[in-house]
Amino acid sequence: MPTISKKGHDMPASPIRKLVPYAEEAIKNGKSIYHLNIGQPDIKTPEVALNAVKKNDIEILSYSRSEGSDTYRKKLAKYYNGHNINVTYEDIIVTTGASEALLFLFSSTMDPGDEVIISEPFYANYIAFSTASGVKVVPAVCDINDNFALPSVKAFEKLITPKTKAILICNPGNPTGYLYSKEEIEQLAALAVKHDLFLVADEVYREFVYDGHKHHSIMEETNIDEHAVVIDSVSKRYSMCGARVGCLVTKNKLVRETFLKFAQARLSPPTYAQIASEAALDTPQSYFDEVIAEYVGRRDLLIKELNTIKGIKVAKPKGAFYCIVELPIKNADHFAKWLLEEFHINNETVMVAPADGFYSTPGIGANQIRIAYVLDKESLIKAVYILKEALKVYKD
Amino acid sequence: MPTISKKGHDMPASPIRKLVPYAEEAIKNGKSIYHLNIGQPDIKTPEVALNAVKKNDIEILSYSRSEGSDTYRKKLAKYYNGHNINVTYEDIIVTTGASEALLFLFSSTMDPGDEVIISEPFYANYIAFSTASGVKVVPAVCDINDNFALPSVKAFEKLITPKTKAILICNPGNPTGYLYSKEEIEQLAALAVKHDLFLVADEVYREFVYDGHKHHSIMEETNIDEHAVVIDSVSKRYSMCGARVGCLVTKNKLVRETFLKFAQARLSPPTYAQIASEAALDTPQSYFDEVIAEYVGRRDLLIKELNTIKGIKVAKPKGAFYCIVELPIKNADHFAKWLLEEFHINNETVMVAPADGFYSTPGIGANQIRIAYVLDKESLIKAVYILKEALKVYKD
Ligand SMILES: Cc1ncc(COP(=O)(O)O)c(C=O)c1O
Ligand SMILES: Cc1ncc(COP(=O)(O)O)c(C=O)c1O
Repeated sequence: MPTISKKGHDMPASPIRKLVPYAEEAIKNGKSIYHLNIGQPDIKTPEVALNAVKKNDIEILSYSRSEGSDTYRKKLAKYYNGHNINVTYEDIIVTTGASEALLFLFSSTMDPGDEVIISEPFYANYIAFSTASGVKVVPAVCDINDNFALPSVKAFEKLITPKTKAILICNPGNPTGYLYSKEEIEQLAALAVKHDLFLVADEVYREFVYDGHKHHSIMEETNIDEHAVVIDSVSKRYSMCGARVGCLVTKNKLVRETFLKFAQARLSPPTYAQIASEAALDTPQSYFDEVIAEYVGRRDLLIKELNTIKGIKVAKPKGAFYCIVELPIKNADHFAKWLLEEFHINNETVMVAPADGFYSTPGIGANQIRIAYVLDKESLIKAVYILKEALKVYKD
Repeated sequence: MPTISKKGHDMPASPIRKLVPYAEEAIKNGKSIYHLNIGQPDIKTPEVALNAVKKNDIEILSYSRSEGSDTYRKKLAKYYNGHNINVTYEDIIVTTGASEALLFLFSSTMDPGDEVIISEPFYANYIAFSTASGVKVVPAVCDINDNFALPSVKAFEKLITPKTKAILICNPGNPTGYLYSKEEIEQLAALAVKHDLFLVADEVYREFVYDGHKHHSIMEETNIDEHAVVIDSVSKRYSMCGARVGCLVTKNKLVRETFLKFAQARLSPPTYAQIASEAALDTPQSYFDEVIAEYVGRRDLLIKELNTIKGIKVAKPKGAFYCIVELPIKNADHFAKWLLEEFHINNETVMVAPADGFYSTPGIGANQIRIAYVLDKESLIKAVYILKEALKVYKD
């Protein structure tokens, strides 16, 4: 039998999905599950986006341009302009989700053996994209006791080697909900310039910022045009994960030209999804106001309920819709399986994401889970109650 | 300024798109262009597919399963069963176009330094996917004078080295229109088994087979379950290139499991497009009969018209909608640019794809072009007439 590739062998299985067989078994056995484990929002997609697709009059569903349709790119540039980001449509390449943008960016800028510094804990698939490209992830470990703030510049700088090509942050962060301050962004920008590195910011949660805080994009820094690369997506912003539209934004022409070669090889991003994404840009501010009020309400409720659990530690998120919770147990992986296999209250249980998949540093995060607050408030209350009762009887 | 990657540097620009700036300039100067250069069919997408999207009642456009929606995979398995291919839905992973399937297959089965033997001339993006994966393309050169039939088994076997991981064919072929005989498929299957290689068939044009010939899929061979991998797509079959839905089909479980890790990292294929693709499976046979009659008519006309040009050589295609034409010139690349820049008849000119992008062997194909017969007959006649007149005055 012919063999698979070494990198195929090394690819991590999705940490979110590895529990799915246990969940399927639990459902078979008649349990219902509160899903705190996935980042699939339950919020409705804006009507304006859904309607644009329903009303399309396409007769031949053709390839779009590899860089995405011009009308969409132009409207998207305006969106960024309205957010204090000075780009033109030519600085944007539309992709099949932020996922593809990340994969092609890794390919465009890094070779096997190169290193990327990523603030940890991080979106688990960064490891997958690194592995696919043979790139080594060097974690900049952030601590739950510091609310996941960046380590000091000094500590950060120690991680830079001659092989370092890029620094990658997620702002606001999945899985931490951490929002980078203007000062932190400025520090990172200075580091990128000093060491001639790309500074990549995954800003797919850019609209989800709470408590009057302001999102500060790396593209607002004016002195890092050649270094700054933003990864974005409509998935979370408009609750349209299934569209599969994202983008790369950078003023660095060579990066765009290189990236475009990868984009041309895959021909084009999906046409229907671009129609939806273009229309979604007309989503009224009231939609976001409501959504954000809803997430803030959920977050506050979640934190309050979690804090009634003995021995628990939570970092209060300032953005996105996740939080990392440290549990008074040893092995969250085992606990998460146990919740699905052995525990229930009136045939209900919860599914959580063990946080070890969000760390590359061995050992850290083993007693942490990630909770996504993508359930309505009533469900959240029940889910945390189940968690609380479970922890009373669970033995490591 | 931080540098791009070596593989980003090595990535070829799309040979189809590199002439686009010249075309844009020509259009600016008031010329109209007959596009013989691209594989974007002008055929209407089946109503049943378009309507399914228009009538969708999605409220939250969520991620689908990474392997594609179960209902679509099940219906797709039935399609293959109806084509003498014995697979279940579990043998299928839905992808964002055949493009993504190829990219992830390269990643799943080949490491940098490995070799893939590809019958040449080939779909140009195979080089891109190989470059992205650091894989070396070893061409099995097919000759226009043999109508692009496979080289002898002996000649083929000489190309196999300890680094060879796979043989890749496109059946029927882009850019040749070549249709592999049952005997050729059996020979390739025997080679794959003997040398323990993957046999990959890109069958995206599987429905476009003419003159009463039958398409023989590698999946019809029963002794190569662990070796055979089919790449497929709805793009050409239903003239819905903009959907971005394709798939990987293989009975090799390890390949599927490995491939799925790459698929999970990008979360899911596009949802609207899967709705369209699932509905497209209900396209009535009459649609294909009409489309095939149309392509056969165009092909016959094209070949007839081309054969009125002195010094030209054409390989008559048995499938797909391309053909390679050898011209009585030295450099088709230069000729193609010249057509756009310098030539016109009543302000009309033609755009062709220079064939050198379909060869990795240096020098071969320099005097060849690829013509895609995706224009109506009247336009085809005019386009070939322009080509004929152009060749009368063109000087290398
Ligand atoms: C931080 C982060 N980046 C990227 C993605 C991928 O987004 P997309 O759906 O646009 O591929 C996700 C999805 O959960 C994410 O959380
Ligand atoms: C031979 C071949 N394979 C794959 C593709 C890519 O198809 P898709 O649109 O499904 O990505 C094409 C597109 O032209 C092709 O000609």
